[in-house]
Amino acid sequence: MQQILEDSIEKNREYYKLGQVATYIPALADADIQAVAVAVTDTRGGSHLAGDYSKKFTLQSISKIISLILAIEDNGEEYTFRKLSKESIDGFFNSINITKDNKLSPMSNAGAISVCSMIKGKSPEEKIDRILNLVRMFSGNTDIGIDYDVYESEKETSNRNKAIAYLLKDTEKMDGNPEEALDVYLKQCSIEVSVGDLANIGAILANNGVNPYTGERILEKGIVRLAKGVMTVSGMYNESGEYFMDVGLPSKSGVSGGILSVASNNFGIGVYSPPLNYIGNSIVGKYILKDIAEKFDLHLFR
Amino acid sequence: MQQILEDSIEKNREYYKLGQVATYIPALADADIQAVAVAVTDTRGGSHLAGDYSKKFTLQSISKIISLILAIEDNGEEYTFRKLSKESIDGFFNSINITKDNKLSPMSNAGAISVCSMIKGKSPEEKIDRILNLVRMFSGNTDIGIDYDVYESEKETSNRNKAIAYLLKDTEKMDGNPEEALDVYLKQCSIEVSVGDLANIGAILANNGVNPYTGERILEKGIVRLAKGVMTVSGMYNESGEYFMDVGLPSKSGVSGGILSVASNNFGIGVYSPPLNYIGNSIVGKYILKDIAEKFDLHLFR
Amino acid sequence: MQQILEDSIEKNREYYKLGQVATYIPALADADIQAVAVAVTDTRGGSHLAGDYSKKFTLQSISKIISLILAIEDNGEEYTFRKLSKESIDGFFNSINITKDNKLSPMSNAGAISVCSMIKGKSPEEKIDRILNLVRMFSGNTDIGIDYDVYESEKETSNRNKAIAYLLKDTEKMDGNPEEALDVYLKQCSIEVSVGDLANIGAILANNGVNPYTGERILEKGIVRLAKGVMTVSGMYNESGEYFMDVGLPSKSGVSGGILSVASNNFGIGVYSPPLNYIGNSIVGKYILKDIAEKFDLHLFR
Amino acid sequence: MQQILEDSIEKNREYYKLGQVATYIPALADADIQAVAVAVTDTRGGSHLAGDYSKKFTLQSISKIISLILAIEDNGEEYTFRKLSKESIDGFFNSINITKDNKLSPMSNAGAISVCSMIKGKSPEEKIDRILNLVRMFSGNTDIGIDYDVYESEKETSNRNKAIAYLLKDTEKMDGNPEEALDVYLKQCSIEVSVGDLANIGAILANNGVNPYTGERILEKGIVRLAKGVMTVSGMYNESGEYFMDVGLPSKSGVSGGILSVASNNFGIGVYSPPLNYIGNSIVGKYILKDIAEKFDLHLFR
Repeated sequence: MQQILEDSIEKNREYYKLGQVATYIPALADADIQAVAVAVTDTRGGSHLAGDYSKKFTLQSISKIISLILAIEDNGEEYTFRKLSKESIDGFFNSINITKDNKLSPMSNAGAISVCSMIKGKSPEEKIDRILNLVRMFSGNTDIGIDYDVYESEKETSNRNKAIAYLLKDTEKMDGNPEEALDVYLKQCSIEVSVGDLANIGAILANNGVNPYTGERILEKGIVRLAKGVMTVSGMYNESGEYFMDVGLPSKSGVSGGILSVASNNFGIGVYSPPLNYIGNSIVGKYILKDIAEKFDLHLFR
Repeated sequence: MQQILEDSIEKNREYYKLGQVATYIPALADADIQAVAVAVTDTRGGSHLAGDYSKKFTLQSISKIISLILAIEDNGEEYTFRKLSKESIDGFFNSINITKDNKLSPMSNAGAISVCSMIKGKSPEEKIDRILNLVRMFSGNTDIGIDYDVYESEKETSNRNKAIAYLLKDTEKMDGNPEEALDVYLKQCSIEVSVGDLANIGAILANNGVNPYTGERILEKGIVRLAKGVMTVSGMYNESGEYFMDVGLPSKSGVSGGILSVASNNFGIGVYSPPLNYIGNSIVGKYILKDIAEKFDLHLFR
Repeated sequence: MQQILEDSIEKNREYYKLGQVATYIPALADADIQAVAVAVTDTRGGSHLAGDYSKKFTLQSISKIISLILAIEDNGEEYTFRKLSKESIDGFFNSINITKDNKLSPMSNAGAISVCSMIKGKSPEEKIDRILNLVRMFSGNTDIGIDYDVYESEKETSNRNKAIAYLLKDTEKMDGNPEEALDVYLKQCSIEVSVGDLANIGAILANNGVNPYTGERILEKGIVRLAKGVMTVSGMYNESGEYFMDVGLPSKSGVSGGILSVASNNFGIGVYSPPLNYIGNSIVGKYILKDIAEKFDLHLFR
Repeated sequence: MQQILEDSIEKNREYYKLGQVATYIPALADADIQAVAVAVTDTRGGSHLAGDYSKKFTLQSISKIISLILAIEDNGEEYTFRKLSKESIDGFFNSINITKDNKLSPMSNAGAISVCSMIKGKSPEEKIDRILNLVRMFSGNTDIGIDYDVYESEKETSNRNKAIAYLLKDTEKMDGNPEEALDVYLKQCSIEVSVGDLANIGAILANNGVNPYTGERILEKGIVRLAKGVMTVSGMYNESGEYFMDVGLPSKSGVSGGILSVASNNFGIGVYSPPLNYIGNSIVGKYILKDIAEKFDLHLFR
């Protein structure tokens, strides 16, 4: 396994030249474009790390799947999906097509901000703490925190997301205060992790909610199934379908260049390489995931 | 003239039953549905008032044409229309179709908020004062002020307009602070007038910028032409075309039930009757304007 | 007048370099890009011709206003506008946004094909003959006919219009056979005229339906008013508003480079110069019309 | 197995009351609303039939997956998906959002008609024969043919699909004659099958392209993977995501009430019950598939 991971990094690392890092905030624009890392956590408990695995990066959109899980735990599936969709993202990830009648994908920005408004908590601080604690528990890493430089940068460039938050309020897709829900969203995007953390999170999902190390059930199987379904259908923005046919693993990417991927009953996988294709997904990340899926025959249609 | 106005009120007043008053804020919902008023100011200086002409109501969207005039005075036609459109409203008046590439009608909410951001002034207070002063000068009524109850109500229900303001910022259609521009907009909507005030404003436009009473030029002819053009093309929301064919006078309506109308070289006209058709225009108001246009052969295609 | 027309041609002819001729069919692509012509017919009966006034060109979209007039004569205003709109064109002239619920501008391709289906006649041949006869009567030129080379070319590139015709059928905006209505449409677009013919047609409209030469009423005033209203609101594609503010005359353009323009109670005007701006209107044509409007103070907001 | 199928039919058959049969053609409107049938073919070769399994019905949209497979065989994956999308259906199944730049799902009507134009063959007859032969080979049933009554009915109500075919031509998504491609499409929709035939087709896909009875490879594994991917992402119209999360099996439905479903490495499944939900999928059919998936633990995220 270790050798396969290292070989795959060497084989694919040059593809970073085909992509571009996100530039809308300095913290992302300054990323090391040649950094590559991969981690695999086995559902039977072992783990492997390769490449620049000590690099930290922010969750960005990967956080959407974490808060969705928490919202379903807090509110139940029925309530959560009363105004959210189980279908692919309608339009682009930052679409403002928000009406009283439509349902939003929780993997779109609008849907994710709506999800943040559903997290239980007396204050935005309590809500983000609950999300952060879930990330820590899933990853087994209690050191995980928020990168406040990234958060401040995100906040400064958040006019569109602020508009989205007010449209959610206007269309009755948000109960509380729009700016508070947005704040929770921006903070969850700024949670800092490494590929090892992603692999551990993925292993919980791969193991249907049971911690591979402790054997403890920490998520209901039904919620895991929903999470993997949502990742399959809309985890990779507007190439989720193509990605699923190619790689065959439920995955969720972020503009920082990270991807969380799940090989059910086998592995949780985390990859990281900042340059993105025009859709917004890590280019080298996809190549490595495809390699791993092929080498271990993990494609869902194997 | 007086008789014609009074006859027209009597003939058309029952049509109020066909409409509904705007309900999104209490101040509009509580309007007297049977109130009807009309005023005509001659470009040679006389004026006529009929019906409930002492009733006060807020300008609402009628204010859009006032601030547009001020924005053109402040910035010139070229700058003002660099990001604004001279075409009809694209979609509905409260559309959120706001991109970097499209141009917005100044008669849409989005376009009007963008216009408010162009008004010169060191603070939102100074900007709204300048708009208010223009209304006072055009109408010759220095008592005109803002209805702060209406303003507060508008503010409480302004989630969609707040979203619009942030989208304008995101798409580079607004230089200053979005919430400040929105505040100017909400205040201009809350300026309180009577039909006589509207008729006087209309008479300035009918007289190509020269005050009919004093003979003083207070607006350049080119700006008047633009204002009347914009009113023709998009002054009556999504029935501007039909309205122009039927009535034949450049007009601008507001959801309070007022209409400002201009019979070039003849009259300024103000009408008021709160019940609106489904497009958002005063029903009785249109019937009265059509009557006046026919009686005095004012249709532009006469 | 003659001198003004000739001066205007000389002053503006070089602007042809700013435009491009339509290229979708050979007959249009091969047009003489330097040809310029203008004709004015007085509502009191005189006429002036300047430039390449003997050049022939096809009506193209100018025909839409002729068949609309005939459809209203055949069916009445109420029936004609039951499924047609009096508002500006929604989207582009060749939009396929055709649903059961929306109303189409008769100046869009879809609306115009729907109009053709309303023309009374036992066969497509009878329908196109009736349109052709109306053009001949309005222009006083019985030699006017169809350019069958252009018609055949149009037919070969009509996949989009054929799709539109079938969508009209699918959405109940067409009673008869879609391909027959399309055939009438393609033939009316191929009617061949000169600027003198356009000026004569315009003079009928300027004179509110009365032939300036014979004094005979050949069109009801109400239909003329509708025609001029439609031209104002949507005659110049997606710059109808700007055009109206600039030039101030109801006008209808075609991709051949012709424009039919109406100065109510004064003149009918025809201009011709093939190079078009990106919206699809003759560039030199607009400059000349603006000149004439200014020289004779014809702008509707004078 | 037999008992489970029969129990599931009894348990779920009453749900037919919640749906409505398709009514746009008489042949569908006249379907027996209480008919229910299910068939399962094991990848190791056995098969089970329950309910009204001798009922015949037309493939309708199920045929889209068959012709897609043939188009990929004929043209390769790269060429086939040059203008087709691997993502979910954009808008509704009969959307006319067809531009030069967008890519269409082969599960939308437009995409499917484009697919039909790619099938190799000298004539429409040869193309439909090749599709029909593929259905016969996959199902092992050489008696399968076209229901010409259904075909004629479809043809009479095909204005929208005809428009789509011409739009495909206009936007360079179709090489040959639009009406011929449409004819192939309408005929493939009219191919008549039973649930047993569907189950056999599904078993080929479940068995990754190898005939379970003969052990012969009749489809490349890569094409099978694509077909199952497309079914997962867009096989159930605008509830494909929800369906995948609930049932967890790649499936394709038709408005006749049939569903083709694939439990990889286990079973091919065919179900039939005409009443549809508002999305267009068989209601009872989904309940039965969900039952089977649960009973045999077939959900892809098991």
